[in-house]
Amino acid sequence: MVEKPKSLEGISVRKDENFSEWYTQVVLKAGLADYGPVQGTMAIRPTAYEIWEMVQEAFNRMIKSTGHKNAYFPLLIPESFLTKEAEHFEGFTPEVFWVTHSGNNKLGEQLAVRPTSETIIYSFYSKWIRSWRDLPLMLNQWCNILRAEIKATKPFLRTSEFLWQEGHTAHASKDEADKEVMMILDFYKEIAEQYLAIPVLQGMKSEREKFAGALYTTTIEALMPDGKAVQSGTSHNLGQHFAKAFGIEFLDEQGQKQFVWQTSWGISTRLLGALIMVHGDDKGLVLPPKVAPLQLIVIPIYKDQEREKVLEVAQKITAGLIASGFRADIDVRENRTPGWKFNEHETKGVPLRIEIGPKDIAADSVVLARRDTSEKRQVKLPELEKAVKEEMASMQKSMFDKAKKFLDDNIRVAESYDEFKDILDSKKGFIKAGWCGKDSCEDKIKEETGATSRLIPFEHEDAKGCVYCGEKAKSYAYFALSY
Amino acid sequence: MVEKPKSLEGISVRKDENFSEWYTQVVLKAGLADYGPVQGTMAIRPTAYEIWEMVQEAFNRMIKSTGHKNAYFPLLIPESFLTKEAEHFEGFTPEVFWVTHSGNNKLGEQLAVRPTSETIIYSFYSKWIRSWRDLPLMLNQWCNILRAEIKATKPFLRTSEFLWQEGHTAHASKDEADKEVMMILDFYKEIAEQYLAIPVLQGMKSEREKFAGALYTTTIEALMPDGKAVQSGTSHNLGQHFAKAFGIEFLDEQGQKQFVWQTSWGISTRLLGALIMVHGDDKGLVLPPKVAPLQLIVIPIYKDQEREKVLEVAQKITAGLIASGFRADIDVRENRTPGWKFNEHETKGVPLRIEIGPKDIAADSVVLARRDTSEKRQVKLPELEKAVKEEMASMQKSMFDKAKKFLDDNIRVAESYDEFKDILDSKKGFIKAGWCGKDSCEDKIKEETGATSRLIPFEHEDAKGCVYCGEKAKSYAYFALSY
Repeated sequence: MVEKPKSLEGISVRKDENFSEWYTQVVLKAGLADYGPVQGTMAIRPTAYEIWEMVQEAFNRMIKSTGHKNAYFPLLIPESFLTKEAEHFEGFTPEVFWVTHSGNNKLGEQLAVRPTSETIIYSFYSKWIRSWRDLPLMLNQWCNILRAEIKATKPFLRTSEFLWQEGHTAHASKDEADKEVMMILDFYKEIAEQYLAIPVLQGMKSEREKFAGALYTTTIEALMPDGKAVQSGTSHNLGQHFAKAFGIEFLDEQGQKQFVWQTSWGISTRLLGALIMVHGDDKGLVLPPKVAPLQLIVIPIYKDQEREKVLEVAQKITAGLIASGFRADIDVRENRTPGWKFNEHETKGVPLRIEIGPKDIAADSVVLARRDTSEKRQVKLPELEKAVKEEMASMQKSMFDKAKKFLDDNIRVAESYDEFKDILDSKKGFIKAGWCGKDSCEDKIKEETGATSRLIPFEHEDAKGCVYCGEKAKSYAYFALSY
Repeated sequence: MVEKPKSLEGISVRKDENFSEWYTQVVLKAGLADYGPVQGTMAIRPTAYEIWEMVQEAFNRMIKSTGHKNAYFPLLIPESFLTKEAEHFEGFTPEVFWVTHSGNNKLGEQLAVRPTSETIIYSFYSKWIRSWRDLPLMLNQWCNILRAEIKATKPFLRTSEFLWQEGHTAHASKDEADKEVMMILDFYKEIAEQYLAIPVLQGMKSEREKFAGALYTTTIEALMPDGKAVQSGTSHNLGQHFAKAFGIEFLDEQGQKQFVWQTSWGISTRLLGALIMVHGDDKGLVLPPKVAPLQLIVIPIYKDQEREKVLEVAQKITAGLIASGFRADIDVRENRTPGWKFNEHETKGVPLRIEIGPKDIAADSVVLARRDTSEKRQVKLPELEKAVKEEMASMQKSMFDKAKKFLDDNIRVAESYDEFKDILDSKKGFIKAGWCGKDSCEDKIKEETGATSRLIPFEHEDAKGCVYCGEKAKSYAYFALSY
């Protein structure tokens, strides 16, 4: 028998044939986002937003239990604030949306729609911090950020508006700030790996790639199936740069005036782009059970005369699963076939499907199908809750393991610049190479290959020589093409 | 013995002497908000933000359990979208912040920073809605809103930027939309009354006061101690106005094209302004236990030699209360006296204080003090959890009852326009008066007295004649001065 053509709602290109088109189709057809009227803007639709809410919940738990608090700061930043820290201003000004009028009135000073909030937040910190007793001050805000994107935009991954959290802390010493930076970077790794099942590398950014105005920047980097990296979260030690620009001083316990040491850090809805890319397949989205808004869909299968009985049992099973704390639903639409429903929920990435028909009822069982492997198994009803729990844990783990294997397999050491270029031409992924530490070599590599240094590992490992100039290597660096 | 002067941190004016200055001091000294550099903007500090998070949590539960979902839509709205619904554009354009440039480039069309999101959201709805199967579409977003305030601004109550939720639903019939409007209005009443302990009146807005572009607007209105009303939440039936302007059509079950019926509704951080005003007293903020970020503060009281023992017991008590689910903390600062601590936590509105010293320990008891009534009682340790639970419930209720009595006592019927003006001059509050329903009378009343019609009650009650023109009254209306 010939297989029926896939419905129009399905994904029409293969992930490994046209990755970019595949991504766009998954975003649109799984109902994750839609394009806004202003270039680079998007609407985040309920499924994607709910995943974001789960990221918020998990991260809020982490930061609140370590003494941070949420707050909210103004969207509009006077231009004069941005210019106070020179590097910072240069870094952000080309991307700023400027408000010049309110109603029909021209404003005296143009206002930036926040591209990040260091300057506006630190103008408050300079008022709020007086003494060592006010430290550490550790606030976070969840908000929208606007950066006019001139490069090709892509929903979630590169948009002119996105949602994020930005943490901003002030400490009495550099040591405390260092510890904060690393604690948050570890939280980010946990969010990426334990919740989104996305393995990441941690490390330092080079001077060229660090945050505009920071002393240093740490990062988590994920690898996409097309071999490009996605910077998935950054945590900065700002040193005393902003403290000096904004006059954030405190009296220490000895009565001496000191500038505070600061950190800032953020993760954004960009993570959702990585989630889609890393786990999706030719049928569409695949969601890790832990962050799937809908973990289980129950599909009743029946002919007319069996309808009532099957629906009754299916509804009872669904109610039982919901009562046990699973995010489950039943698809009772009469005008759709079971096959059509299978396709739709597969496109949308629902982790588990439960099929139930008259034969299953007779056998006191259901069919449990897994989205990632397409494996099906018969499960006796009394065992269902246990089986669902097991499959979800197993799916969460195997999705991570699969992505981790891909990451590990795609870190390649380049001993020479030729080898470096060969890897980039053929396989991409991360290229681990010796680097002398000079901006000029990094610039040349970027200019000639498009690859940027993504991170310098925290653990020092002796490298022979700089992959570009051959001089003594300061360390290894990981290079890659990136989103 | 002479009472010591209050610390500088305390509130220096009485609530009934200079209400406006009192409000500003409470906002600043309880650490709720601080003024931003752009006129009318503010930073929302952790205590206030945490109350907002509790409002979010409660309201999310209500709307999610009734089939609504959260999403996020772009901040920037092309001018041409706003102009599509004429009334709507006229209503909002004087308050719009306009983005005209990105980086150094002038934009082809200026972009509004959302003053509300009907137009941008409905441009998406016109793409997403095709068939009766897509209805109802019920989305909500939590976001920031910008409206350039030209009148005197006041933190929370009138600011150029605020946080809110805006719900936007599309239905197949007017009847369904009507029901949605009322369900949400009841949720708003529940948030105000059951969580914030703020009693409200529900009703319809007049044509003059309805939302720009709505068929009709419903409202909840609260009364402040100075006799002015605060519009605390609105729920609109938009009819088919926007559906026609944005072409939001669906094929009904008979295959006929129809325009959808829409609603929109919102509550904002304005509620926090009402909360401060309604419950605060001469010492500062008073928070209802249900939404107090910190419900209980434990203050150990000791002389040097008793320090260790008292701290040990106090810490154990605090840990026990936290384990029982109360939001409790202990104030162990060594450099502050117990009296100083009492004042500080009173200023910040913490509902309950537990005092514990050597005598209390000897008696196996603590002193439990209530913020709203200043009542103190001795409680035996084994009874503590029960006593705390009782006091919190009793405090929540008596705060509401007190505010309800004030509201009820300040609704006065005016039989004549002279009486109307007398009430406004002396007592303020709500004035219930017959109204013919004509805009002209409403306009004249506003012009001559400053009072606006706040609502028309849902339950019809025959009124003698219009308080302004004397003609036949269509209904009663509630008038008041307002924020």
